[in-house]
Amino acid sequence: MTGYRLHIDRNWDRYVGELLDFLAIPSVSALPQHAPDVARAADWVAARMRAAGIENVQVLPTGGHPVVYGNWLHAPGTPTVLVYGHFDTQPADPLELWHHPPFSPHRDSDRVYARGASDDKGSMLIPILAAEALLRTEGRLPLNVKFLFEGQEEIGSPQLGALIAARRDLLRCDLVVNADGGQESEDQPALCIASRGLCAVQVDVRGPASDLHSGVHGGAVQNPIHALVRILDSLRGPDGVIRVSGFYDRVRPLSDEERVQIATVPFRDEDYMAELGVPALFGEAGYSTLERRWARPTLEVNGIWGGFQGEGVKTVLPAEAHAKITCRLVPDQDPAEVQELIARHVEAHTPPGVRVAVRRLEGLARPYRIPPEHPANRIAHGVLEAVYGRPPVYVRTGATIPVLAMFFSLLGVHTLTFGFGLPDENIHAPNEFFRLSSFRRGLEAYGLLFERLAGLPTG
Amino acid sequence: MTGYRLHIDRNWDRYVGELLDFLAIPSVSALPQHAPDVARAADWVAARMRAAGIENVQVLPTGGHPVVYGNWLHAPGTPTVLVYGHFDTQPADPLELWHHPPFSPHRDSDRVYARGASDDKGSMLIPILAAEALLRTEGRLPLNVKFLFEGQEEIGSPQLGALIAARRDLLRCDLVVNADGGQESEDQPALCIASRGLCAVQVDVRGPASDLHSGVHGGAVQNPIHALVRILDSLRGPDGVIRVSGFYDRVRPLSDEERVQIATVPFRDEDYMAELGVPALFGEAGYSTLERRWARPTLEVNGIWGGFQGEGVKTVLPAEAHAKITCRLVPDQDPAEVQELIARHVEAHTPPGVRVAVRRLEGLARPYRIPPEHPANRIAHGVLEAVYGRPPVYVRTGATIPVLAMFFSLLGVHTLTFGFGLPDENIHAPNEFFRLSSFRRGLEAYGLLFERLAGLPTG
Repeated sequence: MTGYRLHIDRNWDRYVGELLDFLAIPSVSALPQHAPDVARAADWVAARMRAAGIENVQVLPTGGHPVVYGNWLHAPGTPTVLVYGHFDTQPADPLELWHHPPFSPHRDSDRVYARGASDDKGSMLIPILAAEALLRTEGRLPLNVKFLFEGQEEIGSPQLGALIAARRDLLRCDLVVNADGGQESEDQPALCIASRGLCAVQVDVRGPASDLHSGVHGGAVQNPIHALVRILDSLRGPDGVIRVSGFYDRVRPLSDEERVQIATVPFRDEDYMAELGVPALFGEAGYSTLERRWARPTLEVNGIWGGFQGEGVKTVLPAEAHAKITCRLVPDQDPAEVQELIARHVEAHTPPGVRVAVRRLEGLARPYRIPPEHPANRIAHGVLEAVYGRPPVYVRTGATIPVLAMFFSLLGVHTLTFGFGLPDENIHAPNEFFRLSSFRRGLEAYGLLFERLAGLPTG
Repeated sequence: MTGYRLHIDRNWDRYVGELLDFLAIPSVSALPQHAPDVARAADWVAARMRAAGIENVQVLPTGGHPVVYGNWLHAPGTPTVLVYGHFDTQPADPLELWHHPPFSPHRDSDRVYARGASDDKGSMLIPILAAEALLRTEGRLPLNVKFLFEGQEEIGSPQLGALIAARRDLLRCDLVVNADGGQESEDQPALCIASRGLCAVQVDVRGPASDLHSGVHGGAVQNPIHALVRILDSLRGPDGVIRVSGFYDRVRPLSDEERVQIATVPFRDEDYMAELGVPALFGEAGYSTLERRWARPTLEVNGIWGGFQGEGVKTVLPAEAHAKITCRLVPDQDPAEVQELIARHVEAHTPPGVRVAVRRLEGLARPYRIPPEHPANRIAHGVLEAVYGRPPVYVRTGATIPVLAMFFSLLGVHTLTFGFGLPDENIHAPNEFFRLSSFRRGLEAYGLLFERLAGLPTG
């Protein structure tokens, strides 16, 4: 790996410059007006892969945002891994809270600030550059590698499942390596063995045919905002327990072993409170903070709106009110079933005088878990220990990586998560950033990982 | 009155044109960017009063939106009445629901559509034109008249009280005639004997220091939207009864006589439901719909917002959530006291993990009531019976006219409400309109009212 490391050091400034170029593309998948930017990011990724020496690079249409595929398959007798990541980003609002514009990447010593820097453009660029460095210095890769980068992760990868199903042969592999992930801290590596599932609904409450004067009509009709807050409040108890009937029915209880594994992860409630700036933590009674974040399901209202939001007073009794809700799911909850349970709950808890509709939003994702003892996990464990000088802890993410469950069900393989974001990097929030030191370490780790995964048992 | 009527008919097209000019001024008092338009409306009113022959016309500064004063005081030995109205309007949003731009007045046979048409520009223009017609045809008014038109009614007249207190001598009178009011229907006149008071607060809930990823952190911290819906839902019971401790303590129970008076007013719940387009009526148990609208206090959330409101899904756990609340108050509730009761309730009902602030918004107003047997009410009763051919019913408004209580406490006189809006004219809502037939009838009625009020006992 000496030549590999030297190559990286010599090309470092170019790599950082390329990362900044990549981050400047506002590839926000949730906002229709940014669809051309998502397509532009796909083209940028394809061009970068070709420049790296990756072969058969192509931008594949999905009916929605595209995916980029490429491969290098000249290592017969070795396993084939499929590297996955995403080049789309979350929306950047509220814009006024960013210290620098979210798509004008700003470097401040070790940090690069931009929407998508940590999630996931920084981490997904690493395996491309690692492949380039190996190809330039060794002339070959130690195993067969396929690459699949998508542009719709942040909206729940709605068309990716169909694409994977349709291209099963193209994507066939022995293992997926997921570059959308992170480490525990700058000193503590981690292997993420589970992600939560997701489903989303929108609740639309309609009352009078038009906005009414709250003086003339107030007291006579149901106010859609009052009806909405009643419905929403009924979804969770004051103890943080979700009150949707049947919600917990399929939740696999945490085993004692799992609870010990989670308790081993260095974590202090006090530090976490300070990091988030909250006066107290809050959540489902009977579980530790990490258990609640990683291994218990949630129901969160992500947005609410209705009536007058401007300055001053407007004495309106609004015609409608709305809320967006997402649930994070754990094995073996089913996202479509949970949408139905919520719809049924809302119907049963709708007060008189309003009409309520529950819209099933796109982006269903099943929860996923890889056994900690899986051979790929063992290899990655050794790589991270070599790079960080200490063994990784087994962690989970409370977030959703919909493709993990898709890969398992459609390609029949497990996914090793191997990414380099860190928990304090403000993903999905203003002032997201990525550490260049993580970028460098990720390159080191991916070179070693490709080398050692060559010894993985093949299907 | 023959000459008076003839004069009005001859000048009718000009009057209608002037009303349209007046309505084209976007004098929205709640929005700072429209302050120059409110000032422009004041100048328009002052110019129109001067043209009518009203004397000593002046635009008086208040520290906020101005008021316009003028008088005609050449009827010694007769009483002095002070005519009141307002030239400011509500905001026009949501703009997309208007069939024509709200400040491009649109005439459709008997109707003139524009924000402010019914509330209150149409009605407040009537006494000016009535005075003009009397001065042109009789050479004099039958009694002494002062005019006071304000530009801050829709934000609760925050500076008007101080102005009235400072100009007590200028405004001294035997009766106020309030041109901000209406009739029951095109066939049924009404005398409005009470208006509800008002107070407003904003609830600001803050949780984490910035927006969080709802997957990474969901389950660990209190979501400000959940905290807000819990707080808001605690304010009212499912029976429509307000649960703020002490809220009803000062409410004077309705007497049997008052309930009979209200029950006499023609009103059908079915018609009202159809008019508003609601599937059912809803409100405080134990009271009729009109009692709830006119004579019982309310608490309404006028607006709510927090988190993501765009298309699609954003998996955010927002840093903050907000709501605006107003209460309508009845005798003898005190608006500042009710703000305090709400603040105390919110504090007591704040769930753990968030910080909540209750901002007292401007626009406090006390409830008001004139005895039905007041001599001015008796005179107005006769005028309306003469104009409509049937006696008026005694009604109330659930809305707030803050100056009524101010005139009573600062000038020591009661207020006769004498305006010509109708209940279906979409005030405070999209597609507000005013009927030209009401405009014409109002001119007839004001001429007669001025004549007969000359016989009012003076202070």
